[in-house]
Amino acid sequence: MSARERAKSGRLYGVGLGPGDPELITRRGARLIETAEVIAYPALAGGDSLARSIAAELIPAGAEEIVMDIPMTPARAPAQAAYDDGAARIAAALDTGRDVVCLCEGDPFFYGSFMYLFARLAPAYPVEVVPGVTSLTACAARAAMPLAARNEVMTVLPGPLPDDALRGHLRSADTVICMKVGRHLPRLRALLAAEGLTGRATYVERATLGTERVLPLAEAPESAPYFSMILIAKGADPWL
Amino acid sequence: MSARERAKSGRLYGVGLGPGDPELITRRGARLIETAEVIAYPALAGGDSLARSIAAELIPAGAEEIVMDIPMTPARAPAQAAYDDGAARIAAALDTGRDVVCLCEGDPFFYGSFMYLFARLAPAYPVEVVPGVTSLTACAARAAMPLAARNEVMTVLPGPLPDDALRGHLRSADTVICMKVGRHLPRLRALLAAEGLTGRATYVERATLGTERVLPLAEAPESAPYFSMILIAKGADPWL
Ligand SMILES: C[S@@+](CC[C@H](N)C(=O)[O-])C[C@H]1O[C@@H](n2cnc3c(N)ncnc32)[C@H](O)[C@@H]1O
Ligand SMILES: C[S@@+](CC[C@H](N)C(=O)[O-])C[C@H]1O[C@@H](n2cnc3c(N)ncnc32)[C@H](O)[C@@H]1O
Repeated sequence: MSARERAKSGRLYGVGLGPGDPELITRRGARLIETAEVIAYPALAGGDSLARSIAAELIPAGAEEIVMDIPMTPARAPAQAAYDDGAARIAAALDTGRDVVCLCEGDPFFYGSFMYLFARLAPAYPVEVVPGVTSLTACAARAAMPLAARNEVMTVLPGPLPDDALRGHLRSADTVICMKVGRHLPRLRALLAAEGLTGRATYVERATLGTERVLPLAEAPESAPYFSMILIAKGADPWL
Repeated sequence: MSARERAKSGRLYGVGLGPGDPELITRRGARLIETAEVIAYPALAGGDSLARSIAAELIPAGAEEIVMDIPMTPARAPAQAAYDDGAARIAAALDTGRDVVCLCEGDPFFYGSFMYLFARLAPAYPVEVVPGVTSLTACAARAAMPLAARNEVMTVLPGPLPDDALRGHLRSADTVICMKVGRHLPRLRALLAAEGLTGRATYVERATLGTERVLPLAEAPESAPYFSMILIAKGADPWL
């Protein structure tokens, strides 16, 4: 694309929406959504989009919507193809000179699918990332659990990692956050019990949404939804 | 305090303001500030309050302000005494039945001083923590650096930690964030060089503020301000 054509293209905004409560959208995020001509967002293939539901009340009636159906398979190729396709549709809108607001649950760069669009589009289009409240601090707020203070180390672990990897980090950090719990909950629970950390672990499900649950890990349900997290504070009242 | 008296007390809100740009305050945070009767915030002893400056345009003219001068000494006792005093003044306002909105830079529970007030007041008063955008994701957004994807491990390290502790975490996580850089910058820079990570490190200073700087670590200044961070992405384009 020539420099002259580039100058005419629209701008892509990756807007972090926060963890679920629309009141946790930032002022800048809200303004961008309210004035958007084109809105893009991921959805579980054939299903719901949490991102769209968070922003729903702000989306202008006439906005064009680019829905990206992302298959949740262990294989990566189908999801990559879905992002390729979504990026191409977003690029087509940007090429008409219109801005595109991409809705991102939580923060776009914190385990967010926006990263895949960013990698595809940032080399060719102006992109601005608008940070959002992560599920990390939202879960901590709802659990009334300070995350880390002073010189404490905090590690964020994806639940699907193998036990060995999890164990090492559980031992070396002061605060450990386990994301993407879902079907890994029974295994994670056993691992934390073996490490003597059950009493220090809190389970948070769908934080800040109407269906939120906050429980000591020992009382967590047998099976967890995708939007759940375990927070483990090993420090002894470090914030006093 | 009896249950009847308790019921009459005000509520303490710990409101995360985000990293500096007032547009990154959440909608809920903005509403709470705009309607506050009593506002509390920390300030560097005898000096500025970043928290107050972020929220300035939203603070109602008639609001009572509780300023907590926090000494920045390595010794802990003076700061603890300042939080004791601040908590007592906040408690006095809550006892009159008024709510108190405590302003917190970034997120209240992410290395935030609000934790010290929470520890003192949560046992006796209703407290609600309103999460905010952390400097972590704000710096990532400004550096155009995705933090972590898929099954990557992310560790947050306070810069004052000794080299040995830092080194272990630098080796075991995929993404490492170094907070509280300040006067530790030369030492951190040498450590990252020895680990062969200079080329993967980005320095961010006062993200989203007018005086923001984003630089490859190799080009960072000799001395860094307190509000600075180093982001290290060891993964090889993990978001593709
Ligand atoms: C693909 S990551 C997206 C994270 C998001 N970008 C953020 O900044 O929070 C999805 C994981 O985030 C966590 N998560 C997101 N929203 C959540 C919520 N409302 N309550 C609990 N966990 C949540 C869960 O661990 C979930 O498996
Ligand atoms: C006491 S911690 C407070 C963190 C805050 N509660 C948050 O959620 O971001 C202070 C450290 O946060 C980081 N920090 C805070 N605001 C920043 C900004 N605007 N730009 C860069 N770093 C920042 C710096 O590493 C600083 O030393």
